[in-house]
Amino acid sequence: MTQQQALQEYLLRLADSDIILSQRLCELTGKAPAVEEELALMNVALDLVGQARNWYEYVAELIDDGRDADKLVYLRDTHDYRNLLMVEQPNEDYAVTMARQFFFDVWHYFTLKSLVNAGDERIANIAAKAVKEATYHLRRSSEWVKRMGDGTEESHRRIQEAFDLLWRFTGELVTPDDTDHAMFKAGIGPDPEQLKQDWFGMVREVAAEATLTTGAEDAWMYMGGKSGVHTEHLGLILAEMQFLPRAYPDATTW
Amino acid sequence: MTQQQALQEYLLRLADSDIILSQRLCELTGKAPAVEEELALMNVALDLVGQARNWYEYVAELIDDGRDADKLVYLRDTHDYRNLLMVEQPNEDYAVTMARQFFFDVWHYFTLKSLVNAGDERIANIAAKAVKEATYHLRRSSEWVKRMGDGTEESHRRIQEAFDLLWRFTGELVTPDDTDHAMFKAGIGPDPEQLKQDWFGMVREVAAEATLTTGAEDAWMYMGGKSGVHTEHLGLILAEMQFLPRAYPDATTW
Repeated sequence: MTQQQALQEYLLRLADSDIILSQRLCELTGKAPAVEEELALMNVALDLVGQARNWYEYVAELIDDGRDADKLVYLRDTHDYRNLLMVEQPNEDYAVTMARQFFFDVWHYFTLKSLVNAGDERIANIAAKAVKEATYHLRRSSEWVKRMGDGTEESHRRIQEAFDLLWRFTGELVTPDDTDHAMFKAGIGPDPEQLKQDWFGMVREVAAEATLTTGAEDAWMYMGGKSGVHTEHLGLILAEMQFLPRAYPDATTW
Repeated sequence: MTQQQALQEYLLRLADSDIILSQRLCELTGKAPAVEEELALMNVALDLVGQARNWYEYVAELIDDGRDADKLVYLRDTHDYRNLLMVEQPNEDYAVTMARQFFFDVWHYFTLKSLVNAGDERIANIAAKAVKEATYHLRRSSEWVKRMGDGTEESHRRIQEAFDLLWRFTGELVTPDDTDHAMFKAGIGPDPEQLKQDWFGMVREVAAEATLTTGAEDAWMYMGGKSGVHTEHLGLILAEMQFLPRAYPDATTW
């Protein structure tokens, strides 16, 4: 794998995770438990779409095969998607939605915080804007985790069940592969060991405040999203998300 | 509307209703409440696919614009689909699945029984084979309705709720439009008045045995499926059903 290939892979992971989580959040349009929550969810989704667009536009220039951001989003199948398995998991109840968001936000925050210092100006600039949004996302999701964990008996039970349900997808966030190592060596991506420590540190801190238990670091984990091997959910997400451009390939907004 | 147009519309209704109900039933693959039920459901779905193929092949010859059965199934959008709204409704619990099947089967049985005598040999032949299958489908779904209605308190409650939920889609089955009238006049389709009497007669008879109540004949009804105006469910069904041929337009089985 050349450094150029590693860079493309890495950018697609960032972009695809943003867009798929955004798609999941948008499924809650008109269905959120409160109007304020719906506004917040849609704002998060919109932030993620904006960030995704920035990553896609950069990676499209690097790939340089005529595909633009839209084509990368709408005309790739599951095996070409590089998002984390975490973000493709279904919304279920609001505890699962927020636990998924929290696990992702912690990863996202520390990753972007590191990318601000990337030895690639384009990446550093995108990250500098994105990390502000991710900071807000993380504050919001960690507050929800604490509120539910330290809330009623039912809310505690639900968020604990959500933690238990999603724990199996956390390993992928903090287990580096060749691409992650290559990006770190190239002075772009975060130190994998540091990212892992930061992720567990913050997740454990918030969980403790929320009176929740977390799983073992060495628990058996589902992996594969970062290299295109996905759970059955992604296909259904793409079928819905890509229907219009696939059915009407020449459609434009005007 | 010429008679040829009416015939095409009518055949598409038969074909589309078969294929969409089949798609709904196939969603239960691996999820039916018992192995025997799963086998039965998949057999019904397979019968419907076979019937749909026969109708599509005939209508493709009539339309004669180069599209074959596959293209009609996989490359039309919701507004071109002519299925009854009833069959696109979600499976929900098994009572809803069976009530939907029962309401459809009664309509299907009497329609096919009449089409056996159609003054169009091709239609008469397809119907002669299909009515045998529909007779079995109807026996099975009406037995389930009786078993649930005259069963436990919970099963009675669920099937009654399913009847109440789906009643609003029954009007479309027995309310003729120009196409239905044209087909009757052409000596092809059933007498709309007779079909309505037969449908209500059997539905009321089975409901009485099942100790269930039915809605009013003049209750407000959702219509539109037969002319391409669908509920929000059909788009999601097509997105999933059409993903592969739309994503891989040149794919063949060999």
